[in-house]
Amino acid sequence: MRWARIEVAGKVYFGIIEGDSVKIVDGDPFEGYRETDERHALADVKLLVPVVPKTFYAAGLNYVAHVEEQARLHGREINLPKKADVGYRANNALIAHGETITLPRDVTEKVEYEGELVAVIGKKAKNIAETEALDCLLGFTIGNDLTERSWQKEDRTLWRAKNTDTFSPMGPWIDTDAKLQGMETIVKVNGEEKIRFETNNMLFSVQHYLSTISKYIELQPGDVFWMGTEGDSPNLIHGDVVDIEITGIGTLSNPIAKEN
Amino acid sequence: MRWARIEVAGKVYFGIIEGDSVKIVDGDPFEGYRETDERHALADVKLLVPVVPKTFYAAGLNYVAHVEEQARLHGREINLPKKADVGYRANNALIAHGETITLPRDVTEKVEYEGELVAVIGKKAKNIAETEALDCLLGFTIGNDLTERSWQKEDRTLWRAKNTDTFSPMGPWIDTDAKLQGMETIVKVNGEEKIRFETNNMLFSVQHYLSTISKYIELQPGDVFWMGTEGDSPNLIHGDVVDIEITGIGTLSNPIAKEN
Repeated sequence: MRWARIEVAGKVYFGIIEGDSVKIVDGDPFEGYRETDERHALADVKLLVPVVPKTFYAAGLNYVAHVEEQARLHGREINLPKKADVGYRANNALIAHGETITLPRDVTEKVEYEGELVAVIGKKAKNIAETEALDCLLGFTIGNDLTERSWQKEDRTLWRAKNTDTFSPMGPWIDTDAKLQGMETIVKVNGEEKIRFETNNMLFSVQHYLSTISKYIELQPGDVFWMGTEGDSPNLIHGDVVDIEITGIGTLSNPIAKEN
Repeated sequence: MRWARIEVAGKVYFGIIEGDSVKIVDGDPFEGYRETDERHALADVKLLVPVVPKTFYAAGLNYVAHVEEQARLHGREINLPKKADVGYRANNALIAHGETITLPRDVTEKVEYEGELVAVIGKKAKNIAETEALDCLLGFTIGNDLTERSWQKEDRTLWRAKNTDTFSPMGPWIDTDAKLQGMETIVKVNGEEKIRFETNNMLFSVQHYLSTISKYIELQPGDVFWMGTEGDSPNLIHGDVVDIEITGIGTLSNPIAKEN
């Protein structure tokens, strides 16, 4: 089952995707819903960010080759994280599938994608074991954690490097059936494959992150966990289109434009 | 004018405080409202967090003595930040005035308050000058940025140290008339004054932060900026009550309890 959040004639709805169309519901997948008879062609509706989270968690350094690449870039020793210390991103940066990533005038050439699996919390959870962690999920979506690497080096926090407006595309929808096992992430720029990796080959698993965090924090319906990325990225420029495909979910695609 | 967010008979409203009572409005102070005839004694309603922000910004190291104290604690050299690099906190940790700060079983003795001025954004703002920055505010409220200092040293991020559930009391309301000039912050534990400082004596002013951030990020109605704290704190324990008073706004008061 695939949940989309859509805009039709200026109004916002949740809908269930059925082939090339979307069936509108009353309510939402978190608090409860009732299917309606209203149905639109997917091509006729505007896809929105599939959920606006109460809290936007990000796993950060969670794949080996990415940690190595970042250490090299920042001139640091390679230190694999020893614990699942989660970070945070900011809702202001979220945009939907198809929307434009806008680069401020003063970005350097070091603008990179990070293709990430996103776990979407479906119900409240506190103190959950790893074995039951996936039960609290509604499903998975896809994130692109755009990063300006020179700002990442220069600033004390990631506020500009990762949270500039439009730097967090998320979507296109939430898939409730996608399975971690065998999942692959494939990133293309202008249709050309740049990286392909086993999505679930993480330093700390989705289950481990959720269980660890939930010891201190009650997970809430609609919270999202961006699970980190593998490898590195070429420099992105005005006119590029980045596609992030994850097995069983779909493809998140966003064009890039630089401000005049 | 003082804006409260309240719960009455299980429903959530915004209201305007008039003396010891609160007048309910239809709508909210951000998108527009209409006053109603419904009025309740303040003592009869439950105060909620005055706004649930879309994005929860935190200034971090923004007062000289606090930077010095943190450097000493972490065994680092004193480095005053050279730029207004903003951080983020998480909505999960927010609680209202009067609600209990719950310390997980495994906290060490190093639990501390941080009394902070909170600027609440009232309208969208992008690329604003410092001279016009205060015009985008609805007003000010008060925050207590509870911190577990041993976790702050131990973890790669601040997720547990500052964002454990209940670690971000905010309130009691938003004051639209409070003035930065002459403002004082006074923190008391169990009624005894522990620190008093000039609220506006910041490394980087509210105006500078808002102007700087808005070059990359469109500020949104309801976003909050926690402006950092001065000095240090005694260790807090089960049974303590922390009061943070800021001139012209009011007092945010929360008891502390440790989990059994």
